[in-house]
Order: sequence, then structure tokens, then C-alpha cells
Amino acid sequence: MRPINVNMGKTRLEAFSDGVIAIIITIMVLEMKVPGHGHSELSDLREMWPVFTSYVISFIYVGIYWNNHHHMLHVVRSINGSILWANLYLLFWLSVVPFVTAWMGENSFQAIWPIVMYGFVLLMNAIAYTILVRVLIKHEGENSPLATAFGNDLKGKVSILLYVTGIACAWINTYLSFAFYVFVALIWLIPDRRIERKLAAEQQQIV
Amino acid sequence: MRPINVNMGKTRLEAFSDGVIAIIITIMVLEMKVPGHGHSELSDLREMWPVFTSYVISFIYVGIYWNNHHHMLHVVRSINGSILWANLYLLFWLSVVPFVTAWMGENSFQAIWPIVMYGFVLLMNAIAYTILVRVLIKHEGENSPLATAFGNDLKGKVSILLYVTGIACAWINTYLSFAFYVFVALIWLIPDRRIERKLAAEQQQIV
Amino acid sequence: MRPINVNMGKTRLEAFSDGVIAIIITIMVLEMKVPGHGHSELSDLREMWPVFTSYVISFIYVGIYWNNHHHMLHVVRSINGSILWANLYLLFWLSVVPFVTAWMGENSFQAIWPIVMYGFVLLMNAIAYTILVRVLIKHEGENSPLATAFGNDLKGKVSILLYVTGIACAWINTYLSFAFYVFVALIWLIPDRRIERKLAAEQQQIV
Amino acid sequence: MRPINVNMGKTRLEAFSDGVIAIIITIMVLEMKVPGHGHSELSDLREMWPVFTSYVISFIYVGIYWNNHHHMLHVVRSINGSILWANLYLLFWLSVVPFVTAWMGENSFQAIWPIVMYGFVLLMNAIAYTILVRVLIKHEGENSPLATAFGNDLKGKVSILLYVTGIACAWINTYLSFAFYVFVALIWLIPDRRIERKLAAEQQQIV
Repeated sequence: MRPINVNMGKTRLEAFSDGVIAIIITIMVLEMKVPGHGHSELSDLREMWPVFTSYVISFIYVGIYWNNHHHMLHVVRSINGSILWANLYLLFWLSVVPFVTAWMGENSFQAIWPIVMYGFVLLMNAIAYTILVRVLIKHEGENSPLATAFGNDLKGKVSILLYVTGIACAWINTYLSFAFYVFVALIWLIPDRRIERKLAAEQQQIV
Repeated sequence: MRPINVNMGKTRLEAFSDGVIAIIITIMVLEMKVPGHGHSELSDLREMWPVFTSYVISFIYVGIYWNNHHHMLHVVRSINGSILWANLYLLFWLSVVPFVTAWMGENSFQAIWPIVMYGFVLLMNAIAYTILVRVLIKHEGENSPLATAFGNDLKGKVSILLYVTGIACAWINTYLSFAFYVFVALIWLIPDRRIERKLAAEQQQIV
Repeated sequence: MRPINVNMGKTRLEAFSDGVIAIIITIMVLEMKVPGHGHSELSDLREMWPVFTSYVISFIYVGIYWNNHHHMLHVVRSINGSILWANLYLLFWLSVVPFVTAWMGENSFQAIWPIVMYGFVLLMNAIAYTILVRVLIKHEGENSPLATAFGNDLKGKVSILLYVTGIACAWINTYLSFAFYVFVALIWLIPDRRIERKLAAEQQQIV
Repeated sequence: MRPINVNMGKTRLEAFSDGVIAIIITIMVLEMKVPGHGHSELSDLREMWPVFTSYVISFIYVGIYWNNHHHMLHVVRSINGSILWANLYLLFWLSVVPFVTAWMGENSFQAIWPIVMYGFVLLMNAIAYTILVRVLIKHEGENSPLATAFGNDLKGKVSILLYVTGIACAWINTYLSFAFYVFVALIWLIPDRRIERKLAAEQQQIV
């Protein structure tokens, strides 16, 4: 029997997550303080490059999370209370991204702690995402499309390792740390074909 | 006959509530003022702990409300004008949460009135939620799944009592008040199994 | 034949409007500046009553618009390009509400121009709503449920008259103007039963 | 066989885009700083005309993008990873609009660089939109309704030419540049009938 709450809240969970992520990705722009009246030269804009660069990288990061969240929930059939909270936990860490983005940008990538905290928040996001994946797989079953699509989650583990290395590098060179964070973004920008491949494979079996 | 407006607005009510709650939970982070240029030490961040702690507890509170709102509307079949306004009344009090959160955080939990007002707003939210439940039950009927799931609403009544006690404690010790508010959050973090149990029970009957 | 684009965009129009209105109703709270560190007395909060009162009345106004927008689009079957723009025009004037709300609140209802501009923006909203209704009725047809539900739109016309009177009163007494604006809100708070009645009548015919 | 992921994410892509665009169009109003206490004269408002004019034109621009995005995705049947990123790229440039709007408004259309950057961001939006169209057409096929509706995209090409001309004019007269930007908005305000015509034509064939 198909339980009546089989799709319980999946739609609203997606809608709520979309809402929160859409707000996070957009309000970051509010942290970019507009140069006031009388500050209308190109140099005024050039001074903003660290703030702008921070915005770009964070926009890409939040975009990656939305993208993967979207792919992941696509293959999920139902949800429960634990999933709601694991999802909220991920949204919490995503919501801190605008704060550390602004702090890092304000300090032009040169101060140790802003770079460390930015990396730390990225790390917490990666961990929260991993928790969400685990909770979902537990709910869906070890033979579910989701579980087989994720496999041993090498990409996720490597990312966590890279974040930790990047954070540690801050005491050597803050730009090196930032390079690590950019590198992790790049390996995720290559879209996560695992779920798409899995779906494609299943369709062939159906045919 | 199934009336044509049986689902009138439930989808949009959910969508609008999701939107407002998503914005509330996210804009709170904007109240956390980023330490400016030259304030890049760990100590600058450590000074922010009351602001950050306030954010965390409010995030959890708003998360709990979204969670319960979500569970509750899941078993509701249709809505009417009174429900729309009872829902807006709840959203109003939720929308004041970022304001009192920031005021409490700014004053490091040490001033009486910010702690009192934070508790007051939580109390008004609890009352608004209770009103929404009552209006929904009146519309759904006393034998509806919603009505039986809520029963005598012991948890809701206890919460209101704890808020009032917490507010009164502010004149003794503001940290004690805050402890009360955290305690109420904890008893709600344990997910509201009432509706899930009810649904599970019904499914068994159907089987 | 049912044209394939019969529901063109209605869902997204509703979703987009819900999003914009949800943001408008929520960001107004950001205009309420939190009294800073060291301003933790009840008197600091009492000084905010004009700002808070402005917020409450604007929250109610935006709530009324969402409510009526919701009822109205419920009986609409399809949309077109003109409707999209008439809707955007309404959203534009709604989006100015937080600005005039803050200006009126900052000046404690005592300055003429903030009160006048608040009334003016309410008036423009009422006109924009009327335009949207007309465009919708033109699209739905003069015998559509929407057209018969709205009839001669007495309530809308009276509101416009009251706004104009309220604005004119600002040069006599600004509180009197504000009373007019509150009065219009009250006559709309009584939910617009026209569409609900119309739907109920139709259902009886179907039965 | 209809592949199971035929509608993969179209709904969420639309919902997420609606969310981001709704936030962008609304938060621009937050950049309009409310004249503080004691600044309650009409002249205080009159001084804001460049800020307000900037807001109006940007509201219209974002409205046009939402409108066209909406029409375009209406005829799209499915999406893929490249489309998600092309869409995020467009949302990124849209998200920068509030920033350049505020900068241009602050400097009363008189400074060269704010006008140039505003035009540059509009140009980047136009290019991002063109990229999204190309990626969608590649996915839908050259004979899809979308491809035939867009044709050689004359309007898009003319717009890009006008933006570039407008930007170049900034060194002659900044108001002239602004006139160019307003002109492009006007040619798009005339709704994009291409897709509607295409749909209408198809319906006749079906009849």
C-alpha cells in the first residue's frame, strides 16, 4: 500500500529550501556597500574588488548547493521529521555564508581569521550536506537510487579534506587558503553527473 | 459533492507562509553587523557571541514553527477567510522575531527589557499558533484528524506557562529567563509526533 | 477546444506575486532600527511606538492586498501579457509601501508630507488594484464569475474617495489623515465575501 | 517512451528563479534611504528623484526579465545541468542590478562611471539571457517551438547594440546614455508576442 503521506512535505521542503537559498544568494549583494555621493570614480569601484570577488565565489557556492540539493531531492520519494531538521541544519550554515563573505571581503583576503572562518563555514556546510545525504539514504534504503548514485561519496570526502587543508594554510598565506576554496568550487562546478547517470541507466532498463 | 473551492488557497497559503518564514529566518543574519575593516581578529568575533547565540536560538524557533506549520497544514483539507487572517496574525508575530532577537543580542542577555520583550514575542507567537489551531479545528470539525491529533494540546499549554515564568524571571536573573526560552525550544525540537502517529494509525485502518 | 495555454503562467504569476508580497511584508521589519547597546530600557521601546504602529498598519494593508489578490486569482482561469504588466504595476506600488511606512514612522505621524505620501501610495495601490481587476475582467469576459462577483466595485470606489479625503485632511490634522487610512483598512479587514458568495451560489446551482 | 526526468527540475528552476527575481525586484527599495527624523519636507523627497527614477527603471527592467523568462520557460519541456548554470549566470547579473541602480541614483545620473557600470550590467544581463536562450534551444532542438519563436533574435541583437552605444555616450553626456537604456526598456515593454503568436498558430493547426 502506498502510504498516504508518501510525499509528505517534499514539495514544501523543496519550496522552503528554494526560498531560503534564493534569499541567501540574493541578500549577499546587500552587503556590498554602495560608494556614496561623490564617490563615482572607477577607482571607487576598483577598491571593491575583494568584496565583489567574495560575492562571486559565494554566489557560485550557494548555486552549487542549490543545484545539488535540487538533483538529490529529485530522486527522493518521501521525507520525515529527521530529514526536515537535517535540511534546516544545512540551511542554517548556508545562512551564515553572507556574514563570513562580507567579513572576508571587508578585510581583502589578507587577515587570517576572516579567511579561516569563511573556510570553517564552508566546511560546516559540507558536513551538514553529508548529514542530510546520510539521513536521506537511511530513509530511502541502501538500495535506493539515491544510495547507489552517491556510492562512497569520494567527492564529498575530498572536499572536506581540501577545506581543512585550506583553513590550515591561512597561517602560512591567506591567498593560498582562498585558492583552496576556489578549487573545491571548481570540482563541484563540474555538474554532479552521478544522479543523472543513474537516472539514465534506469530508463534504459525500463525500455 | 466535493465543493469546487475545497482546496481554496491551501497551496498559496502554504507557499506564502513558506515565503514569509523563509525570509524571516534568513534576514535575521542581516542584523549581525559584520565587524568592519581592521576588525579581523578572533576577539572581534568572540565579542559577537551574544548576537550569534540569539541568532541560533531564533533560527531554531522559526524552524520549529515552520516544521509544525508544515505538519499541521498537511492534514488540513481546505481553508477559509478566517484561517487566512489567523495565519497572517501568526506571521506578524514571527516577523517581529528578528527585531527582538537583535535587541536581545545587542544587549548581551544582560538587560531586563530586551529579555522580557523576546519572551513576550515568543509568547505572542505561541498564542497566535494556538488561535490558528483553534480556527483550523473549527473549520475541519471536532472529529477531524487535526482535532484528534492535537487533543488537549498539553505541550502548547505548558509552553505558554514556561514563557510566562521565563518572562517573570527576568527581574531575578536574565540568564535564567533565557534558559527557560531554550528549554521550551528543546521540548519542541523533539518533533511533534502527534500528527505523524495519527497518520500512521489511519493508514493501518485503511490496510 | 481548450487552448493549450489556458493556464499560461497563472501558477507562476501567483508564485511570483506571493514571493514579492511576502518579501515586502517582511522587509518592513528591517526598517525598524534596533535600539543599540546601552539602549535597553522600556522607554527606548516606547519611543518606537510610531515606527511600530506604522509597521502594524502597513502589515495589515499588505495582508489585505495578498488576501484579495489570492481570492481574485482563484476564480481567474487564464492570463495574458497585459495581466502580467497590470500585476507588476500593482507590485510596484506595493513595493513602495515599506519606504513611506518608514518615513511616516520616523516623523511620528506629525509631519504633513510623510502622511500625505503614505496616503498617496495607498491611493496608487488602490488604483493599480482596480486596473488589475479591469484587465482581468476584460480577459475573463463580462459574464465571468469574476465580473459578477465584483459588480460595480462600490467598496473600491469608496476606498479611493476615503484616501483622497484623508490626504486632504493632512493640512488640517495629520492624525485625522491617519484615522482615515486606518478606517479604510478596517472596511477591508471584513473579508471580501463577494467572491466566496459567488462561488457558494454556483456550487448550489451545480448541486 | 517519455523519460522519467522529462520535467526534471523545471518547476523548481522556475520557483527558484521566481524567488530570486522577486527578492531582487523588492530589495532595491531598501537601497532608497528613508530621510530621517526632521527631514519631512516635500523638498527632502524631491531630492530623491534620481534614486527613485533609478528604482523605477530597474523595476521595469527586472520585470521585463521576469516576464520574458516566464514566457520562455513556458514552452520549454525539460532542462539539464547546463541550463541550470546558464540560468544561475543570468540570475547573478540580475542580482548586481540593485547595486548599480543605487550607485547611479546616488550620483544623480551625472557621473560617468556609475552610468557606464549600469549600462555594463544591463549588457551582461542581455548576454546572459542570450546564452540561456541558446542553451535552451540546443536542448529543445532546432525545430522546437522555442527555436522557431526566437528566430534570428533581432530584438536581442539590437538591444545589445543599443547598450554598447549608450555606454559609449557616457563620455559625451550621461543623460544621453540613460535615454538609451530607457529606450531599450521601452522596446521590450511591448510584450514579446513571438512566443504567444507561435502558440496561437499551433493551436489553429490542432483545431
